[in-house]
Amino acid sequence: MTLQHDPVFQSRFLRALRREPVDATPVWLMRQAGRYLPEYRATRAAAGSFLKMAKTPELACEVTLQPLRRFPLDAAILFSDILTVPDAMGLGLYFVEGEGPKFERPLRQVADIEKLAVPDMGSALRYVMDAVTLIRRELDPKVPLIGFSGSPWTLACYMVEGGGSKEWGKVKALALNEPAAMHKLLHVITDAVIAYLAAQHAAGAQVLQVFDTWGGTLSPAMYQEFSLPYLTRITRELKRADAPLILFGKGNAAHLEALAASGAEGVGVDWTVTMHDAARRTQGKVALQGNLDPAMLYGSPAALRAQVRTVLDSYRDGNGGSREGHVFNLGHGMSPDMHPDHVAALVDEVHTYSAR
Amino acid sequence: MTLQHDPVFQSRFLRALRREPVDATPVWLMRQAGRYLPEYRATRAAAGSFLKMAKTPELACEVTLQPLRRFPLDAAILFSDILTVPDAMGLGLYFVEGEGPKFERPLRQVADIEKLAVPDMGSALRYVMDAVTLIRRELDPKVPLIGFSGSPWTLACYMVEGGGSKEWGKVKALALNEPAAMHKLLHVITDAVIAYLAAQHAAGAQVLQVFDTWGGTLSPAMYQEFSLPYLTRITRELKRADAPLILFGKGNAAHLEALAASGAEGVGVDWTVTMHDAARRTQGKVALQGNLDPAMLYGSPAALRAQVRTVLDSYRDGNGGSREGHVFNLGHGMSPDMHPDHVAALVDEVHTYSAR
Repeated sequence: MTLQHDPVFQSRFLRALRREPVDATPVWLMRQAGRYLPEYRATRAAAGSFLKMAKTPELACEVTLQPLRRFPLDAAILFSDILTVPDAMGLGLYFVEGEGPKFERPLRQVADIEKLAVPDMGSALRYVMDAVTLIRRELDPKVPLIGFSGSPWTLACYMVEGGGSKEWGKVKALALNEPAAMHKLLHVITDAVIAYLAAQHAAGAQVLQVFDTWGGTLSPAMYQEFSLPYLTRITRELKRADAPLILFGKGNAAHLEALAASGAEGVGVDWTVTMHDAARRTQGKVALQGNLDPAMLYGSPAALRAQVRTVLDSYRDGNGGSREGHVFNLGHGMSPDMHPDHVAALVDEVHTYSAR
Repeated sequence: MTLQHDPVFQSRFLRALRREPVDATPVWLMRQAGRYLPEYRATRAAAGSFLKMAKTPELACEVTLQPLRRFPLDAAILFSDILTVPDAMGLGLYFVEGEGPKFERPLRQVADIEKLAVPDMGSALRYVMDAVTLIRRELDPKVPLIGFSGSPWTLACYMVEGGGSKEWGKVKALALNEPAAMHKLLHVITDAVIAYLAAQHAAGAQVLQVFDTWGGTLSPAMYQEFSLPYLTRITRELKRADAPLILFGKGNAAHLEALAASGAEGVGVDWTVTMHDAARRTQGKVALQGNLDPAMLYGSPAALRAQVRTVLDSYRDGNGGSREGHVFNLGHGMSPDMHPDHVAALVDEVHTYSAR
């Protein structure tokens, strides 16, 4: 698909990713389709489970569109989970209420890694592509749709641990004790992520985002060995597919220069660095996405609006006085106990203040 | 107490904090007295609960000394909890197995803050000072004893949330919506922390550490408003008491220059920054403590030893070729499933490699 002929090409979001002038700073929010919306909770209750919802294209489409019906967001993001790829590799994804994702068959020994293969996008992950196609058909043609995947390191974390972890001790021990096996694992995951993102793009997702949620738990040396090179390979491969890519990473502040040099169109930044510093350090090589602390949504609408203005001005000041190249977002995902009215205030403030 | 006449004055640990030459780099480990030791688990089982152990000076003394009997560590650290101060302020600390600390009476409204007062060190916190006195009597006089407290921001986090949190939404909302009340809260906590640390010093703790565990969850602007100034006030007040102070903060990598300028003798650094960068950025103004990723203890002893050497060399290279001013430690605390043999390998490698 040549993006130039797509109605989204001139959208604020895609213009911002190309660092072109915009009438107002575009905004979307990580986990904008989620439990903070009563209509999401209703769909989920009817579906019976999170996974049922993610694996049923009509339901995934419905919840993807819900926040767009409420707020003038500048992008939709596919409703899915970052762990669909390892699930399709045979690890058996399941959820325990209140405990987060788990795998029935985590990788227990090096031999388990040898058996892994890139899953077939047309069968095991067909439901994702069907959801993308359906959402793209139902969504306003001028609103970009974002597809996504977990990063190789982040997927490896869950695949080795079998679920979430405070310390990621098993996966780090594997990296330390069996670096060759770890690289083999990251290699096959990277192949799968590239195929997965390319298939989402072909199905209609105009922008792609990689969530390196746990890269920031690595020391700089381990990040440079076990996360960054795989992100860079994904970026390089997707450039050929003409699909703009955003690399988001929680705790990636130390690595912004390296991420900006990766060739990605955008880098997602958490709230532990100012946008001023992030913009100054990346010197216009990429668009920057972020970076309001999600907890600011718990503040009063007036206090929240002030925080939004601070982020917008911080970016502009670090970017030589220009708002170009900024996609407003949170520094991480939303939470179930946030209030939709505060989201409305946030989106309104981004648009009205940046348009002045 | 004038520290110069104390037998610990010439210990590696205190020499390192003064950035004087040492025969080998000193090492201690955060949470070195803990569940990874079978003798700790036995003491805890006999005591019946964590709090009973922390509040009984003989038991606190016993578990403080346990790791020193196994490993040639360069310091002991008081066995206690960071939440003893709010407990003494009347909030009612308790623990639920597997859920971490909680308060029976968290701060629910601004009026709750008005009622807070600095607790009496001689009554409500007498058990801590008795433990310090007892440990100091039982411990090798040449081994320094570290006393500690949570930082004002970190204590406020638990006091407002009523326990741990992923997002710290309530305490951040308070800071955002009621900044004057938040500063009032931080002010009284800071007064209490200063009195608490000074009392521990008077009771025999030759070095003090402040754990700003959750300062790194703040945006730079909020860190500069709600955490850093209170750390600086603690440092200034304790300087008068001639008590060397270490400011540890998880996620404090962005703030190392500011922390080095605070006047503290040492700054504790987590593993998301190289010691090379930390040393270069702080330019010899403070000693640096850290910074091995605790998860490296899950690696094989050989791999672990290689990681220890990397940290030692990284510090030396960033510190103009000298090992002076480095206290080896983890970037965060130990975990229950770590192996004592690996701790032995770590301590041995620090001492033998740095002595070359």
